[in-house]
Amino acid sequence: MGKLIQLKKQGSKNTAFTELRNFVDSELKKTSEIINKRLVSEVPLINELAGHLVNSGGKRIRPILTIATAKMYNYSGDRHVNLAACIEFLHSATLLHDDVVDKSVLRRGEKTANTIWSNKASVLVGDFLLSKAFEIMVEDKSIEVLRILSKAASVIAEGEVMQTLADRQLDTTEDRYLKIILSKTAELFSAACLVGSIVGGGSTSEKNAMEDFGKNLGIAFQLTDDALDYTASSSAIGKTIGDDFRECKATLPVLLSYRRCDKQDRMFWNKTIVDGTQENGDLEMAIKIMNKTNSIKDTFLRAKHFSDCAKDALAIIPNSIGKELLCNTADFCVERTV
Amino acid sequence: MGKLIQLKKQGSKNTAFTELRNFVDSELKKTSEIINKRLVSEVPLINELAGHLVNSGGKRIRPILTIATAKMYNYSGDRHVNLAACIEFLHSATLLHDDVVDKSVLRRGEKTANTIWSNKASVLVGDFLLSKAFEIMVEDKSIEVLRILSKAASVIAEGEVMQTLADRQLDTTEDRYLKIILSKTAELFSAACLVGSIVGGGSTSEKNAMEDFGKNLGIAFQLTDDALDYTASSSAIGKTIGDDFRECKATLPVLLSYRRCDKQDRMFWNKTIVDGTQENGDLEMAIKIMNKTNSIKDTFLRAKHFSDCAKDALAIIPNSIGKELLCNTADFCVERTV
Repeated sequence: MGKLIQLKKQGSKNTAFTELRNFVDSELKKTSEIINKRLVSEVPLINELAGHLVNSGGKRIRPILTIATAKMYNYSGDRHVNLAACIEFLHSATLLHDDVVDKSVLRRGEKTANTIWSNKASVLVGDFLLSKAFEIMVEDKSIEVLRILSKAASVIAEGEVMQTLADRQLDTTEDRYLKIILSKTAELFSAACLVGSIVGGGSTSEKNAMEDFGKNLGIAFQLTDDALDYTASSSAIGKTIGDDFRECKATLPVLLSYRRCDKQDRMFWNKTIVDGTQENGDLEMAIKIMNKTNSIKDTFLRAKHFSDCAKDALAIIPNSIGKELLCNTADFCVERTV
Repeated sequence: MGKLIQLKKQGSKNTAFTELRNFVDSELKKTSEIINKRLVSEVPLINELAGHLVNSGGKRIRPILTIATAKMYNYSGDRHVNLAACIEFLHSATLLHDDVVDKSVLRRGEKTANTIWSNKASVLVGDFLLSKAFEIMVEDKSIEVLRILSKAASVIAEGEVMQTLADRQLDTTEDRYLKIILSKTAELFSAACLVGSIVGGGSTSEKNAMEDFGKNLGIAFQLTDDALDYTASSSAIGKTIGDDFRECKATLPVLLSYRRCDKQDRMFWNKTIVDGTQENGDLEMAIKIMNKTNSIKDTFLRAKHFSDCAKDALAIIPNSIGKELLCNTADFCVERTV
């Protein structure tokens, strides 16, 4: 990971998400207040460490999805802002644990919590955030919402375990990889949208639609992330490329490239990803092989398939500004450059 | 269904599958002999009814996949020809039961067994074929193969039940529809390839690859079938179009069209698919709405995504003529016109 997300930079392809964020601006502020209030603890380490991550400039795409979906139904209570905070806590908890498992040094261009503090602290504060998430969902008092979000939490954990098992495995099939990102990423996107629809009072068809919208959006988002890790443009200041490569992650561009390339190039992938032996120039070589095999281009194309499915899922929802902004976000997810 | 498949007509797009069939010609003949021998029963009705279906000119794509996969490994025993017969029996059993459930009158341009004999006879002969399939898989004596094929049989049955529940349901989501065809069609394609790889002695990676190849191929095949039901070219003599429409099946072209069209057109879909009220000109109107919303075109595009995934799954297998023919079959599945 370790990408510095430039939210203030608004390229034409990046405006769709900015518009969605503006649409939920006042609610998102409330969610941020809830997040900060909930982070207050008598243990200073918790305040510092959790605050470091939670306020380090993530896109907040998951809580925004919850709020935007509820707002699409003109919902005006405060369940969505609370549940959005819950969802951001769930997400942050996984990030903390992920960085420990992956031994990551940078996230969003800054030192990771495990680097600044320690693995032990990151694991425990991750548990703290997870418990906070459960507290908020229990306060919401809806068994339906509790069922969805607690299931999401366990599916994400399963996804992380699956990913660990697939690490450095070049023979992971695309379907297996999809299953991992379905659990690791798409499940929470899906839950975020579904919960928003429940709060907004969506019909069964509409809840199904939002669940599938989120799911497909999440896959599209993750696949695009995987491809972007090898294609950052120099204009996107602060963006580093090759983080996944350095962490020997067998993401889809690598898996497609490995399957499509010749014997010699397969030896390269075995050396750099399986053995983890990387030298100067290897990242450039990796990108060269990927381009030769169209693997980055086709990862974007696969992402587009899922973003198309997301938009079609959404199509059944009555037209509104909120729906239009969510629909555009599906395009943003695969066309973004950061 | 009720399509008359013109296997002898070899358009440029249709040669890939013919080449695959030629590749396994001698083995396929043995499989046909096994099929005919196994159909012999003391009960004349069983001989007639089962023979009517099994010899009515299906593509035999599933048994061909099993044989071709095993042959790709230069396997020269007779397990693949026997298991191919087993797989064709499993498939035929579902067709018989399907036609009863769907009250179908025509299959492959000929009267269905339930129309000629009776529902009762079709159900029971379906059970007979299913038991024959189990007999053959038990004779193979491999617990691994037994596990895969018996699981496939139950997943297919589940898929059929799911489809019955989704019949005439225009609010079925695309993901739900995919789940249905995954069970109903892709599971047996997948099992056919996996079993071929087991018989041929494939490594774990290769077995995983063939399993995913078959799965993605099956989805691509079914989605293309769904689209072709609305696009038969007049040159394909004997091909009837609109069978799915007349049976009020909410296949992907219908589902996409329903999600994308305006209120007035949604009323049309409700009348023709949900209420099942169809008049002269309605099929033409359905196709018109589908074209206006790009639903047929995009169903083909979705199929192409899965056929691309199938080819990438296969890429890890060592190069050979068999592999090349299977790879071309993935293109055939989405480019065929019949």
